[in-house]
Amino acid sequence: MRTLEDLPTPAVLIDLDILARNIANMQQHARAAGVKLRPHAKTHKSPEVGRMQIAAGASGLTLAKTSEAEVFAAHGFEDIFLGYPIYGADKARRLLALADRVRLAVGVDSVEGARSLGDVFHAAGRRLDVRLKIDSGFRRVGVLPEEAVAMARRIAELPGLRLAGIFTHAGHGYGGPTPADAARTGAEEGRIVVEAAEAVRAAGLPVEDVSLGSTPTARGGMVVAGVTECRPGSYVYNDRSQVALGSAALGDCAMTVLATVVSVPARDRAVIDAGSKTLSTDPMRPNVDGNGLVVGTASRVARASEEHGVIAVAEGDAFRVGQRVRILPNHTCAVSNLHDRLVAVRSGVVEGEIRVAARGCVQ
Amino acid sequence: MRTLEDLPTPAVLIDLDILARNIANMQQHARAAGVKLRPHAKTHKSPEVGRMQIAAGASGLTLAKTSEAEVFAAHGFEDIFLGYPIYGADKARRLLALADRVRLAVGVDSVEGARSLGDVFHAAGRRLDVRLKIDSGFRRVGVLPEEAVAMARRIAELPGLRLAGIFTHAGHGYGGPTPADAARTGAEEGRIVVEAAEAVRAAGLPVEDVSLGSTPTARGGMVVAGVTECRPGSYVYNDRSQVALGSAALGDCAMTVLATVVSVPARDRAVIDAGSKTLSTDPMRPNVDGNGLVVGTASRVARASEEHGVIAVAEGDAFRVGQRVRILPNHTCAVSNLHDRLVAVRSGVVEGEIRVAARGCVQ
Repeated sequence: MRTLEDLPTPAVLIDLDILARNIANMQQHARAAGVKLRPHAKTHKSPEVGRMQIAAGASGLTLAKTSEAEVFAAHGFEDIFLGYPIYGADKARRLLALADRVRLAVGVDSVEGARSLGDVFHAAGRRLDVRLKIDSGFRRVGVLPEEAVAMARRIAELPGLRLAGIFTHAGHGYGGPTPADAARTGAEEGRIVVEAAEAVRAAGLPVEDVSLGSTPTARGGMVVAGVTECRPGSYVYNDRSQVALGSAALGDCAMTVLATVVSVPARDRAVIDAGSKTLSTDPMRPNVDGNGLVVGTASRVARASEEHGVIAVAEGDAFRVGQRVRILPNHTCAVSNLHDRLVAVRSGVVEGEIRVAARGCVQ
Repeated sequence: MRTLEDLPTPAVLIDLDILARNIANMQQHARAAGVKLRPHAKTHKSPEVGRMQIAAGASGLTLAKTSEAEVFAAHGFEDIFLGYPIYGADKARRLLALADRVRLAVGVDSVEGARSLGDVFHAAGRRLDVRLKIDSGFRRVGVLPEEAVAMARRIAELPGLRLAGIFTHAGHGYGGPTPADAARTGAEEGRIVVEAAEAVRAAGLPVEDVSLGSTPTARGGMVVAGVTECRPGSYVYNDRSQVALGSAALGDCAMTVLATVVSVPARDRAVIDAGSKTLSTDPMRPNVDGNGLVVGTASRVARASEEHGVIAVAEGDAFRVGQRVRILPNHTCAVSNLHDRLVAVRSGVVEGEIRVAARGCVQ
């Protein structure tokens, strides 16, 4: 029996009980709301965890990049939505090969991008399902709601494509700072995407999937009438940002980083062997505040260089060289992307590993 | 002949001509100053690039973690300094195995940490070379200069260890903001580490290596009389921070990220397929300013989520969907750690790949 004391540090731990509960809870919310759950697998990048989500009732997975879909397809996943405006003939040829094995849909938000995919599918005598991305306020990608009908018309006319749905992502729900804000943002996200879908339908174009989601806005968005699908990601592991946003409690966080204190150069400073290569430099949301929380203490990792996490020792806390600590990271998805393997634990005992098979798949 | 147009994006490019020139130039500075150059290989994490540094005259390599040393030892490197306060019997046993194959030294800054290594070496009838870390102002790890003699005495008395040197790292040289500041910080770093070495010698303890360095402070520090070794890292590739700090010109930057514009949702916003998974979220230094510079334009990547880099389009610039751009990242070391392979290019032609063999080695 391998315990946490036997593990070399730093190590990224996943608590299997919390993971299973998080998956079950979000699935239950989706079931109650009557929507499909299509989790964004970027959080875990792991076929093992994806299989748990499908087993719990998820309709398929969401990913962003072509190479991620290739990894998950190779691991037997059959229904993938790439919620990303993929561009170019080289990617389109890979998507064409994927579409032989997988029920595939891809996000679009421009004629140029959509055409670059449609041309390849049309030349092969095929059609690719695409969903039009709506900007519901995040101001990243997507067309504004008032442009939805015009863009849907232009995309629906392109050869090699079938307009299958409309989707959005209210990333500004991470602006917080209170659960009420996230719920309100989710409700607004739902209203915007449903109105866009209805406008496109009124223009004579069928829209099957009306999809939204992020962990903070999921519960507020999925209950809006007309929404058919929700795509949260972080909820499987949760993190310090989700706790700060009110989307999760500390006890809902399945991912922690086990680290060792390697230096205590001053009373107010202790340094652990987990820095930005382990924790990432992603900021906490909604408010920037260092790189992680030292679980069970009032202290936090105040700054991180690549291999050093510098703990600002809070009043009443003390650390000694050699002490092991657990860190709650700011952003779980970014941590997954830094590691090939995570350690699966249950009740403090190591049960195995979780392979991050799609780590680093940026193309 | 493969050109940049044939590459799938995003791709991290390394210009081999610039890389070779950067290696030669820093080696020439060290030669002129009469110090050994022991580059920090964390920037590239690549045996290929490390071999170029050794071939140019580097005395060995610097790394931080035990697992990194294992990768480089497996690739034939014979002289490694781990400039990091490694803790624990498990790591010590791995260092013991490494010391059979490699001339090895390890950083220490506490009795507890040093003893955890020395005990294992002593039990095996061996001695590990250690260097005492001095805090020259960065306030991360290391003992304060006034504590150097007392700590050196305590460490020299521990069984299984040989106090071989003294080292520091003026990471606060990244505070900038002008080349004069970095040069002054380097000179100060040199004065502090040399004075500490002389005090320890005056106490009757021999000190061979007197080592300092970072790319911004290297040239100012290595010329201080009494310094024997310099350990810069970033200079091999350079990055946007080094340019901002005056340590490099734009033409000295060997690493750029080739990306494709996938969405232009507004006149002032273009989105590329390189986000934080490609560029990292490491901030620019000395001043925080987005995630990268769009080379050849006045625009920058203003924010990044995992797969989206959002360009704030500057006055006079324009981008179109499908356009390829090159991004100068903020922090080259962090980019290396996100990718298994970089693309080696020369005069716009792909020459091969650079394997980041020690990527993700955090233990």
